[in-house]
Amino acid sequence: MAEIQALTFDVFGTVVDWRTSVAREAEALLAPKGHALDWGAFADGWRAKYVPAMAKVSQGGRPFVILDVLHRENLVELLREQGVGGLSEAEVDQLNLAWHRLDPWPDVREGLARLKRRFILATLSNGNVRLMVDMARRAGLPWDAILGAEVARAFKPQPEAYDSAVRMLGLTPAECLMVAAHPSDLASAAARGLRTAYVHRPLEYGSNLDRKRPARGTFDFEAEDFLDLAEKLGA
Amino acid sequence: MAEIQALTFDVFGTVVDWRTSVAREAEALLAPKGHALDWGAFADGWRAKYVPAMAKVSQGGRPFVILDVLHRENLVELLREQGVGGLSEAEVDQLNLAWHRLDPWPDVREGLARLKRRFILATLSNGNVRLMVDMARRAGLPWDAILGAEVARAFKPQPEAYDSAVRMLGLTPAECLMVAAHPSDLASAAARGLRTAYVHRPLEYGSNLDRKRPARGTFDFEAEDFLDLAEKLGA
Repeated sequence: MAEIQALTFDVFGTVVDWRTSVAREAEALLAPKGHALDWGAFADGWRAKYVPAMAKVSQGGRPFVILDVLHRENLVELLREQGVGGLSEAEVDQLNLAWHRLDPWPDVREGLARLKRRFILATLSNGNVRLMVDMARRAGLPWDAILGAEVARAFKPQPEAYDSAVRMLGLTPAECLMVAAHPSDLASAAARGLRTAYVHRPLEYGSNLDRKRPARGTFDFEAEDFLDLAEKLGA
Repeated sequence: MAEIQALTFDVFGTVVDWRTSVAREAEALLAPKGHALDWGAFADGWRAKYVPAMAKVSQGGRPFVILDVLHRENLVELLREQGVGGLSEAEVDQLNLAWHRLDPWPDVREGLARLKRRFILATLSNGNVRLMVDMARRAGLPWDAILGAEVARAFKPQPEAYDSAVRMLGLTPAECLMVAAHPSDLASAAARGLRTAYVHRPLEYGSNLDRKRPARGTFDFEAEDFLDLAEKLGA
């Protein structure tokens, strides 16, 4: 069996806790203006518009645009739905950058440092390059390369998102391990020949949602967090 | 005037000393097989085939291929010219990877660490992603993103090589500073609106070649090395 050379990471939910971070950023901008919302629900509402917005691109309904653009359109819609008015364009831009300021899960920095000693680490996210760069600089994430949607000009789960990452790493698919908290992402990666590691992130959607684990043996590796993954990969 | 947010780097010659490193790698592989060549001249000969090989792609003479592919074709040609026979395909592959194992100039690691505190640092090289990743991991180069030819599917000095880096960084051209030891690269970047920093690398082609400095004021910044550049940029 081919030896794993590189780990490719889903980012939102797998590496960073988008829900808590987006809720915090929204509250910081909107609460001083007198808005009292359920900030976790605000984050969930924003996130809920993400998959349909990308699907429109993937199905050919519009040309490729980066995630920052989709996030902003979705934010304008969400603000309208939630009755939040009176923001300047600059304030909407500022709030949109919440996705550039997401905190990693507590095990991530140490886990990635260990994994980096042995493997190439690349993002394989639907986030755009600048979003990934800002997040990595702020959170101290030691990526070797930022790959994924913008570089591929295709969003996951389109095959080209996975294929372009494998190609740019100069590897065969079986030498790449896709790391994600989302079974559907891993299934799409496996369909392109990548190996798969499921990481359990039970709090991604908040503490009130019981997140089921995939059946044992569904993926090549199963880990509780990035430290456990490093352990299981001998890193 | 726009504030500089990101530095984009030429790599071969500007960040790393390709000539000494390639000469060392060639000698390490070929000398034990009884070949006694001028190893610096071998590196020069390999490098001399680089610009014409890219030009063929840029002029539409063949579809885009990554630099690893051009380097290997050029190596096979060079070995024939120099009368070096009897290498296996795996040995030619191994020698071709010399370009993944180039040493940085002595000021680079400390200079980049200083610059990184204040600016986004991205490669804008004709080298492919895996080449840049291998080099960075071995040499400890803290890039925030690997941009340039493979991601753009265009070699410098084609406009798209510069434009795609600016676009993926989410910046205006004037917010990007192109750093290079080569006036022609800087002139091409300036033509796309980037700002320019010339770094003097007098030993790029060996100590027997007197490298002229561009006239004062040709570029926005002029530095002796990366530490001097950090100083001049207030980093």
